Amino acid sequence: MKRIFTSWLDVLLVFIPLAIAFEVAKADPLLIFAASACAIIPLAGMLGRATEHLTSHVGAGVGSLLNASLGNAAELIIALAALREGLHDVVKASLTGSILGNILLVLGASMVAGGLKYERQKFNQTAAGMGSSLLLLAAVGLIIPALFHFTAADRGVAIEREMSLEIAIVLFVMYGLSLLFSLRTHRHLYAGESHDAEDLGEQPWGFRMSVAVLTVVTTLIAVMSELLVGAIEPTAHKLGLTQVFVGVILVALVGNAAEHSTAVLMAMKNKMDLAYGIAVGSSLQIALLVAPVLVFASYLFGTPLDLIFTPFEVAAVTISVFVVGFVAIDGESNWMEGAMLVGVYAMLAIAFYFLPA
Amino acid sequence: MKRIFTSWLDVLLVFIPLAIAFEVAKADPLLIFAASACAIIPLAGMLGRATEHLTSHVGAGVGSLLNASLGNAAELIIALAALREGLHDVVKASLTGSILGNILLVLGASMVAGGLKYERQKFNQTAAGMGSSLLLLAAVGLIIPALFHFTAADRGVAIEREMSLEIAIVLFVMYGLSLLFSLRTHRHLYAGESHDAEDLGEQPWGFRMSVAVLTVVTTLIAVMSELLVGAIEPTAHKLGLTQVFVGVILVALVGNAAEHSTAVLMAMKNKMDLAYGIAVGSSLQIALLVAPVLVFASYLFGTPLDLIFTPFEVAAVTISVFVVGFVAIDGESNWMEGAMLVGVYAMLAIAFYFLPA
Amino acid sequence: MKRIFTSWLDVLLVFIPLAIAFEVAKADPLLIFAASACAIIPLAGMLGRATEHLTSHVGAGVGSLLNASLGNAAELIIALAALREGLHDVVKASLTGSILGNILLVLGASMVAGGLKYERQKFNQTAAGMGSSLLLLAAVGLIIPALFHFTAADRGVAIEREMSLEIAIVLFVMYGLSLLFSLRTHRHLYAGESHDAEDLGEQPWGFRMSVAVLTVVTTLIAVMSELLVGAIEPTAHKLGLTQVFVGVILVALVGNAAEHSTAVLMAMKNKMDLAYGIAVGSSLQIALLVAPVLVFASYLFGTPLDLIFTPFEVAAVTISVFVVGFVAIDGESNWMEGAMLVGVYAMLAIAFYFLPA
Repeated sequence: MKRIFTSWLDVLLVFIPLAIAFEVAKADPLLIFAASACAIIPLAGMLGRATEHLTSHVGAGVGSLLNASLGNAAELIIALAALREGLHDVVKASLTGSILGNILLVLGASMVAGGLKYERQKFNQTAAGMGSSLLLLAAVGLIIPALFHFTAADRGVAIEREMSLEIAIVLFVMYGLSLLFSLRTHRHLYAGESHDAEDLGEQPWGFRMSVAVLTVVTTLIAVMSELLVGAIEPTAHKLGLTQVFVGVILVALVGNAAEHSTAVLMAMKNKMDLAYGIAVGSSLQIALLVAPVLVFASYLFGTPLDLIFTPFEVAAVTISVFVVGFVAIDGESNWMEGAMLVGVYAMLAIAFYFLPA
Repeated sequence: MKRIFTSWLDVLLVFIPLAIAFEVAKADPLLIFAASACAIIPLAGMLGRATEHLTSHVGAGVGSLLNASLGNAAELIIALAALREGLHDVVKASLTGSILGNILLVLGASMVAGGLKYERQKFNQTAAGMGSSLLLLAAVGLIIPALFHFTAADRGVAIEREMSLEIAIVLFVMYGLSLLFSLRTHRHLYAGESHDAEDLGEQPWGFRMSVAVLTVVTTLIAVMSELLVGAIEPTAHKLGLTQVFVGVILVALVGNAAEHSTAVLMAMKNKMDLAYGIAVGSSLQIALLVAPVLVFASYLFGTPLDLIFTPFEVAAVTISVFVVGFVAIDGESNWMEGAMLVGVYAMLAIAFYFLPA
Repeated sequence: MKRIFTSWLDVLLVFIPLAIAFEVAKADPLLIFAASACAIIPLAGMLGRATEHLTSHVGAGVGSLLNASLGNAAELIIALAALREGLHDVVKASLTGSILGNILLVLGASMVAGGLKYERQKFNQTAAGMGSSLLLLAAVGLIIPALFHFTAADRGVAIEREMSLEIAIVLFVMYGLSLLFSLRTHRHLYAGESHDAEDLGEQPWGFRMSVAVLTVVTTLIAVMSELLVGAIEPTAHKLGLTQVFVGVILVALVGNAAEHSTAVLMAMKNKMDLAYGIAVGSSLQIALLVAPVLVFASYLFGTPLDLIFTPFEVAAVTISVFVVGFVAIDGESNWMEGAMLVGVYAMLAIAFYFLPA
């Protein structure tokens, strides 16, 4: 079993039984929130590792596809749980938060951590440019419905949902095309970016074991997400926080913890290409894959989700996309650029903290 | 005559008599709209070719100036027709649509078409950077009056018109300076961009013939534009579309068709510099030359045109300028970048479709 | 004394006694405004020179720090005078105007002046990229409170002030980090940018003399600023201008005059790195040092200053930051890029002129 548990974060697995115990005992929701959040962190990491091991048993093409699609499974599961509860604002806040967290906090911390060791770190400029452009495209997908909502509020909810659905389809198609680009027609640009099981310095798991671990972990994440989402409202109330702040900042931190530790580790090994790929790729998946899938899924639940984010969320994502684009455009990073990303995150977090419900 | 008719699009010329016949017969406005639109497409192409032939008879300086100034004569004629009818919203929508169509659809389609044949295509980075910066300047010229309108609505129409006129003058001066830059002081940067009659693989027409064709074609475009503009309102009503959608999407497609086919052709010949120059140059002419000229002309008609575009138009142009800037900044393109531009266009078109009148 | 007076601007010193005489004689406030404004121009230049001489007597580290911190002392003194008068709108307008003036007018004029002599001028791309990114960070610091104000206006003044204070702290920390970056960890990037006393072609002043001049000049600027600020309101009224226009355009021109002449001079000597460093560095100091310091100082005066700028100010700064970022990103400049910056400044000035109070 030593091959399943490889990170010091795995000690947090102890929170799985604790979270369940708290729930059963109808303990303080704050405890349930904290325990389930702590439990998801190592599970999200294991999900990533299990996916990587699984991919070593399938062809490179399918493998990359699996990797790319399961990369944010934890976020997707959390969001689905919130969606089922009808907490649309929390769903959208967790998407926003996950994007912000990845491109500002994860990437910023990576650049700081790497930049303290190396004067400057290089990464593939073409791949970075494509990432920035796709981020901007994703931001456009957020801006348009929000702008529509504020300039044509009288069009009614039905039309806004129809438009959201169509824009979700465009985003989904762009995601598919971006996979075609990065996995097939321009694969070589991303050559240095795959970090498979071997990078983790271990023998790949067997196929069955990979699938078994994936199944167990996914189920556990689903259970923990149920508890987490159920505890958001009373927790926010108790801490005097808004649900949006909890979704944008706290839940997103939980969902991104695995990417965070991996990206920072890679940056410290001077593999900035990987760190950038993880942070930006993860954001892109949230915006171009998870968000559309949630819109589609919402129709199954009978409560159509629209893509109309709050003005502040839209502005925050747009700002972040531009800052990352500016910082990444030269294909180099240093600690100060990382500090700037973290600084922007701090200012946004301050504003989200003070924003009313 | 074979030298005048060179494109398969020329078969659409048959719609000239048809459009007139429909108008005389007071036929369904939908038919008039469609026929006059189809007729303008080849005429706009011929206008461009005639201009190029004419320029081979004058000095390089005057020739480039002619080329640059007549390049969007079709759009200008259509807009003047709408202006005379007092359809200010349609005028502005056709400007917006022409800019969006050129930098998103024409450039995007060119990048896709070229990118399917070539893994990556290069274009002059300095010229592209100048183009992006000028586009941003043009966007600023749209943003400022709109923002003024929404933050100081109480200042009244007279002041908004005065401000629009002054901003139009600044834009017009910037256009003049940009010609000075590209045709004189930094001509060499654009060396690869001129595509004159010889590129079309034919002998230049005589001077008289060029002028004659120009005169006839311009007159025909003016007549067709009258019919087109007169049919916009009933057509929009009949199709359940808003006039803005018709202006931004349909009329703009008609006016841009010639640029579209030329740019795609150039991209497929791996002359991405030319394709970029056509798409961005055309947008810049619309914003920095056609728009100011329309403002000036509106004073002759006694109904001053302001430059206050709707928030959605301003946002759409600004978004597009940034996306194109991001995509073009590295001086390279590939099919995915083209697909992104088309994707942004699709999302904007969806929103314009649903926007109320 | 010939070493203190080195610039033809120094003849303007004659306005010091004149301004005082006008004030004592209770002359037309327009005269007081004009005279004190003219007096500040050479004083700001002398302040800069005295600082440079002083730094030749301390270690390089402390020297650079002094240089960086005292660089905008004139603006700070003017703003403090306005702050003490409770003219919060004027304080903020002068900050906005100083940023716009530096990155659009000073940099634009430098690029034009240099570009008329040299076809293209290069500057350090990494340093320029860092400058652009920091400018964007500063813009974010303006955008967030304004956006908060407009989407959550009901939160009340107390919360807006608390948020402004926290954001001011973040900006201040980022300024400190940027000094650490440019003066210590990545000093070599800015190697060509220091222009010390020797650049002025003279022997450094003695330590005592430097301090004495600094003290006298600072006192004189403070006195003149009192007169200037006191005359803003009646002057604006008399000229039919708003206080915001006077703050953004006129007062800022006065505060920036010294940077202006130095930067243009450097550009004409093909030292574009220096010109860029002066213009952008000065803007960054205003946004990341002067603005936070004013917020902190306002608590001493018992009238807390918030960072909520008007939508037009926020938009103007954001637009300018993007235009400069686009123009500077390739590490090259030419006269047309300079003309664009001036063009954007002209359009913004037109709008500010028409904006209501």
